[in-house]
Amino acid sequence: MPQISQKGTAMPSSPVRKLVPFAEQAKKEGKHIYQLNIGQPDIKTPEQAIDAVQSANIEVLSYSHSAGNQSYRDKLIAHYNKLGFGLEDDNIIVSTGGSEALLFTMGSICDYGDEVIIPEPFYANYNGFATASGVTVKPIETSIENNFALPAISEFEKLITDKTKAILICNPGNPTGYLYTKEEMQQLADLVIKHDLFLVADEVYREFAYDGREHFSVLSMKELDNHAIMIDSVSKRYSMCGARIGCMVSKNKEVMATAMKFAQARLSPPTFAQIAAEAALDTPQTYFDQVINEYIERRDILIAGLKEIPGVTVANPGGAFYCVAQLPVEDTDIFAQWILENFDVDGETIMVAPAAGFYSTPGMGKNQIRIAYVLEKESLKKAVNILDQALKAYNS
Amino acid sequence: MPQISQKGTAMPSSPVRKLVPFAEQAKKEGKHIYQLNIGQPDIKTPEQAIDAVQSANIEVLSYSHSAGNQSYRDKLIAHYNKLGFGLEDDNIIVSTGGSEALLFTMGSICDYGDEVIIPEPFYANYNGFATASGVTVKPIETSIENNFALPAISEFEKLITDKTKAILICNPGNPTGYLYTKEEMQQLADLVIKHDLFLVADEVYREFAYDGREHFSVLSMKELDNHAIMIDSVSKRYSMCGARIGCMVSKNKEVMATAMKFAQARLSPPTFAQIAAEAALDTPQTYFDQVINEYIERRDILIAGLKEIPGVTVANPGGAFYCVAQLPVEDTDIFAQWILENFDVDGETIMVAPAAGFYSTPGMGKNQIRIAYVLEKESLKKAVNILDQALKAYNS
Repeated sequence: MPQISQKGTAMPSSPVRKLVPFAEQAKKEGKHIYQLNIGQPDIKTPEQAIDAVQSANIEVLSYSHSAGNQSYRDKLIAHYNKLGFGLEDDNIIVSTGGSEALLFTMGSICDYGDEVIIPEPFYANYNGFATASGVTVKPIETSIENNFALPAISEFEKLITDKTKAILICNPGNPTGYLYTKEEMQQLADLVIKHDLFLVADEVYREFAYDGREHFSVLSMKELDNHAIMIDSVSKRYSMCGARIGCMVSKNKEVMATAMKFAQARLSPPTFAQIAAEAALDTPQTYFDQVINEYIERRDILIAGLKEIPGVTVANPGGAFYCVAQLPVEDTDIFAQWILENFDVDGETIMVAPAAGFYSTPGMGKNQIRIAYVLEKESLKKAVNILDQALKAYNS
Repeated sequence: MPQISQKGTAMPSSPVRKLVPFAEQAKKEGKHIYQLNIGQPDIKTPEQAIDAVQSANIEVLSYSHSAGNQSYRDKLIAHYNKLGFGLEDDNIIVSTGGSEALLFTMGSICDYGDEVIIPEPFYANYNGFATASGVTVKPIETSIENNFALPAISEFEKLITDKTKAILICNPGNPTGYLYTKEEMQQLADLVIKHDLFLVADEVYREFAYDGREHFSVLSMKELDNHAIMIDSVSKRYSMCGARIGCMVSKNKEVMATAMKFAQARLSPPTFAQIAAEAALDTPQTYFDQVINEYIERRDILIAGLKEIPGVTVANPGGAFYCVAQLPVEDTDIFAQWILENFDVDGETIMVAPAAGFYSTPGMGKNQIRIAYVLEKESLKKAVNILDQALKAYNS
C-alpha cells in the first residue's frame, strides 16, 4: 500500500476532533449541549446579502476573475479606503475565506523550512496552514495574567534567524480576544522594518472592538507599505462563515503579483458568495451596533460568571468573541471529554475547546480552554453554571 | 524590502496571461474576439441548481461540515454508486473546486521534493499546484500524431525513482480531449500496483465521452482500492464553474483521514454552492444528452474546419471539449499575440491558448495551441475561418 506523506502525518487535527464522538454520543443520549467550542456565530446574516444572491439573474454560473469580481473589489476597496487604508486595485485579491488568503500569503513569502513567528496561543489552523506550506512556526509565549498582550520585542528578537520571513498576528485575537494597542503595533512595525520581515495581520474580527477601544490596522502604517499583509474575511463580520469569502491585501506589488499566480491556479473564488459579500458591504452601522452590543453583554456575563468560579483565571477580552480561561484541572482534553461523557445539569451539558491545540509549544495551555461566546445570554449563563458544577464534581 | 519566496517566483503564470493586455486592447479598438482560450462553457447551468439556492431558507449562512454537507455527500455517493464505484461515507471529501481536491491530494501523498509523473500536455494548473505543494512534475511525452494516447508503460518505468509517489492523469484530457481506454487504464493499474504508487485521475470531464466511447473510471478497478484517488468537480458537468465545488474520492482510508486534516484547516467548502451542487445531481439525462450532442456537433465542425487548413495537424478528441492543434508557425505565443494585435476579419478576431503552458518540458508544444469548443457552432465556423486567414497572412 502506498504511503501518505510525512506532511500529512504532521498535519494537526482540530483541537476538538477527539471530543466529537463523545459529543455525538451525548446527543444520542438526549443531552442538550451548549457548544462553546466553535466560532460559528448565531447572529443572523444581513438580509440584503442573502437577498442579493436569491434575486440575482444567473444563467451560467461562471468563473469570476481570479482576483474576484471587479465590482466587488471596487466596493471593497472603497470600504477599506473609508478606514484610511489608501488601497489601489492591484492591492487586493478576493480569496476563498481568510483560510485561502493565509495559504496564498505563506506560499508567496515562504519557502520550505522558512520560519514565521506567532504569539501563542493562536488560531489553531495557523499550524495547519504552516504545515501544508512547509513553514515552521516559531511560537512566542504570552500570558493569561497579562491578558495575552504583546510580549517584549526582545523576546521576538531572540527568535529571529535568517530563516524568519514574517511575524503573524491575529488582531483582535482568536482565541485570546486581545486587541493590540497602537503602541504595540508601532513596536511590531519598527521590528519588521529593522529585520526586513513581513508583518501579517489577520484582522477578521476588526469590527469586534469593545469598551471604546479602536482597532489599529496594520494597513494604517505608511512605513509598512512593503511589509504589511492583511488577511480579512466576511465570515465573522457579517455572520457569513459559509460564504467562504475573504481577501489578502498588501501594497507590496511584488507580493500581490506573486499571490495572483496562486489565485490563478485555482481559477476563482466562489461566485454566489461574492454576490452576497458585495451586498453585505451595504450593511448599515445599526447592524454592527446591535451585534457588538450583544457581544459585549455576552462577554460581560461570561467573564463575570467565570471569575466567580473558584480556581478559574480568565483574561478580559477587548475584542473578537472568544476568551481563554485557565481551569483548576490538569488536562482540559481529559476534562472536556469527561464532561461530555459523565456530566449534565438537568440533561444539559457543555462542549469546550481544550486550549492545547491553540499552542504549538508542546505542553502549553493544557489547563486552559477557549470559550466562544456565540450563544445567547441565557444559554451562556446556564453554560457557565454547568462548568462551575462540573469542576466541583470533577475535583471532588 | 522583504523578499518573496522562491516558490512564488517559480509559480507558473496562466498560459494566456501575456495575451490578456492585447485582448483588452483589441476590445478597446472595437474588435469582437472569439475566445477559444478558456474552459468556461456557454451552456446554461441546470435551472434547478440555481433555483435551489434562490429558494433556500437561510438565516445564518453557516459553515458546513469540513467534508461537505452530509445531505450532499449522501446524494453524491448514491450518484457514484450508480456508476458502480461502491463508495462509503468516509471515501469522499467535498472540496472548493477540483483545484482544492488536487491540493489536498498532493499534500496528503507528497512531501517536499517528491515526484509525480504526468503525461504531457496536461492541464496547466497541475504545474501550479505542484509548485505550491513542493512537488516535482516528471512529464512524459505523448504525441499529437497518436491523438495523445497513453505512452508505453516502459516510458513511465524509466521515470520512476524512489521519489515517485503518483501518476496523475486527466481522463478525458484537458487539453488533449483524449479518453483512455479500458486497456490503457488496466496498464496503469498494473504499473502503480507493481511500483506501489498512487494513481490520481482527474475525471471532471467524465460525462463528455463521444462516439459511443465509455468512460472508464479509476474507481472501477477493485485492485486499485488503496491506490486510486479520483478528482471530480461540478464545474464542467453542470456548467457551474463559478460554484467552486469539487471532491476528492478514495477508498484508501488513510489517505482520506489525512486529507480531512487539510479540509478541517480550511473549515468548509462554500455553503451556497453546495446547495446548488446537491440540486444539480437531479439534472435529467436529457440535459446531458443535449449538451453532449451539442459538443459533438461543435467538435465535428471544429476538427473538420481545422483539417482543411493547410499545414494544420489536429488530434481527434474522444472526450472533454478541447483539442490541441499544431500550426505551421514557429511560436504560437508570438502568433496568438500577433493575431490580437494585427489581424481581424470584418472586425472579428480570435484568442487561442498557446500550448507551451500545457507542457512542463521546456520548448515542447511551441507550435501548438489549445482550442476550447465552448462557443456555438456558427461562432466556431467563423473562428476557424479567422484562424485560416490569419495563418495565411502571418506566413506570407
